[in-house]
Amino acid sequence: MTTSPPPSSSPTSRLGLHRVIDPPGVLPQAAWRLDASPEIATDEVRIRVDRLNLDAASYRQLRETYAADPDKIRAAVLDIIATRGKMQNPVTGSGGMLTGTVEEAGPDSPLGLNPGERVATLVSLTLTPLVITDSLYRWDGRSEQIPCEGHAILFARSVAAVLPDDLPVPLSLAVMDVCGAPALTQRVVTGGSTVVIIGAAGKSGSLSAVAARRAGAGTVIGVVPTQAEASLLREHAGLVDEVVIADARDPVALSARVEAAGGPADVTVVCVDASGCEGGAILSTRQGGTVIFFSMATSFSAAALGAEGLAADVTMLVGNGYVPGHAELALDLIKATPTLRALFERRVAHEGGRR
Amino acid sequence: MTTSPPPSSSPTSRLGLHRVIDPPGVLPQAAWRLDASPEIATDEVRIRVDRLNLDAASYRQLRETYAADPDKIRAAVLDIIATRGKMQNPVTGSGGMLTGTVEEAGPDSPLGLNPGERVATLVSLTLTPLVITDSLYRWDGRSEQIPCEGHAILFARSVAAVLPDDLPVPLSLAVMDVCGAPALTQRVVTGGSTVVIIGAAGKSGSLSAVAARRAGAGTVIGVVPTQAEASLLREHAGLVDEVVIADARDPVALSARVEAAGGPADVTVVCVDASGCEGGAILSTRQGGTVIFFSMATSFSAAALGAEGLAADVTMLVGNGYVPGHAELALDLIKATPTLRALFERRVAHEGGRR
Repeated sequence: MTTSPPPSSSPTSRLGLHRVIDPPGVLPQAAWRLDASPEIATDEVRIRVDRLNLDAASYRQLRETYAADPDKIRAAVLDIIATRGKMQNPVTGSGGMLTGTVEEAGPDSPLGLNPGERVATLVSLTLTPLVITDSLYRWDGRSEQIPCEGHAILFARSVAAVLPDDLPVPLSLAVMDVCGAPALTQRVVTGGSTVVIIGAAGKSGSLSAVAARRAGAGTVIGVVPTQAEASLLREHAGLVDEVVIADARDPVALSARVEAAGGPADVTVVCVDASGCEGGAILSTRQGGTVIFFSMATSFSAAALGAEGLAADVTMLVGNGYVPGHAELALDLIKATPTLRALFERRVAHEGGRR
Repeated sequence: MTTSPPPSSSPTSRLGLHRVIDPPGVLPQAAWRLDASPEIATDEVRIRVDRLNLDAASYRQLRETYAADPDKIRAAVLDIIATRGKMQNPVTGSGGMLTGTVEEAGPDSPLGLNPGERVATLVSLTLTPLVITDSLYRWDGRSEQIPCEGHAILFARSVAAVLPDDLPVPLSLAVMDVCGAPALTQRVVTGGSTVVIIGAAGKSGSLSAVAARRAGAGTVIGVVPTQAEASLLREHAGLVDEVVIADARDPVALSARVEAAGGPADVTVVCVDASGCEGGAILSTRQGGTVIFFSMATSFSAAALGAEGLAADVTMLVGNGYVPGHAELALDLIKATPTLRALFERRVAHEGGRR
């Protein structure tokens, strides 16, 4: 048995550590300030940025702080980016994503991007070196969508997806936003299994339902909270086999209705952003089955203690937003499934109106 | 495609729903009041209780509320149990566990218990019907260990473990308290793999290290925060192959040191109760590897977003406290591994002193 000495140099510059200015040695996301200079390392990519899409929480904080004054909001965003070398709201800690065109790709970059391709970044703006050169003069400050000019840097270990020519950009971005869910669902579901999707009429839920089908699921049961959501799901035929209306926060009612619809599940996928759904998901899953938690409202301790209290031998997965090829898979599901695309377009239009 | 009607009756009485008085229809843990009458259903078990072990948070709340007055604390606990039919602190929501002797086991109980066996319950007191008959006169109110007389009911879907004759009861209880960790570790680790245990000198960490070894791990790397913990681990030879001293909240330093010691890991097991260890665990694990989060300080969103931000294709498991046979496995590891037992006994003695 030996004790290892601290290494003399870090092996992780693929993560962008060489761009971290302050404090030195932390990951780019944790850094206060990044070096956003345009010269790229041999494994980096430079993007000509055309749009920032601020995280909703960040935009709300800025709008409230500056009483919706467009000039002040614009000045605040410019100041953050100039000071930090990235768009990370210092109050919320959150960022967003960007779209742009590949300007230069280093020869050692593993991302497979070529100059001229239109891409969206699938890693957060909180870790992306960024410079803005147009003073954001085209942004009216009234939405989190910021038309702009500037550049951004992608590290070797980053994620970006080419925007397809044959889909509207807002639709592609909405699909990419939740593309981890269908990818992990497809990986976990095996042929003939019974799959329960909690929140099946939502964006990540409907994509996951179709991914489960493609993975060979025998029965897909969609859980929705209301009659209206059930109607929406039924109108878009073929997404699920059974529709269950239940409050996912009520474990007894949910599991009984899932069982009546053909459950318990071999795999349960939690896609609703309500808290308190852990027990119901666990109880709707057979012993030896798997629960995938995608909802950011999931409580780690509620899941761990809930399974223990129910003597439930279920495998519980934290829904990782990154699975190799996730964006391509999700875009392919949308293109290949007209009913899914129709549902999605309705969701995108609806959410656009709510913001 | 059909829509399933609500079922006419619940299929889940194995969970004790028939014991729920108020509010009707919820799980026993969520209930305000349970029916703790001693007559058992054919799939239930009645335990003659000899000791309650209150959850630390619950005991602290009671002691602080009643200014450490033993009579008032005792009266409060008696009142909770008499009112609710279970020991669930209404402020903290937490319970504890109990030990006792099997008095009667229904013929349809799947728990495999026989009258006369000394057992500990491994499901929470928050869902266990309980009656106290001795006014707690033997409890001095100065510790969470309550000697008592009374009875408790175990449902069909419950967990209890027979206390071994050849180990001291406090040691067995300490082992059972964390027995989910080694059981899930053994299930996930495959032959020849590299395993990193974060918090390897602790109770769940040391058990998991030995479980990984038994599952055929090629290299076990133990991460500890201080030189003192490293010395403790080294004194108990054979528990790990390599000792790494690192702050698990610093992803860059942790992953670099793990790599220098033979990493990255195929499987990383997080057993420290510090928050902010998600990124370091993810970064210390190879692409395609697995992280098991046992720490209750784990943040679901930090894990999910952390992996996404690092483009890390890792499987992340919520550490389920229940795995069939977990108590037996953990007790067997302790008995079969003298150095593990020695470390554990030191931990138990030390923690006893801290409370």
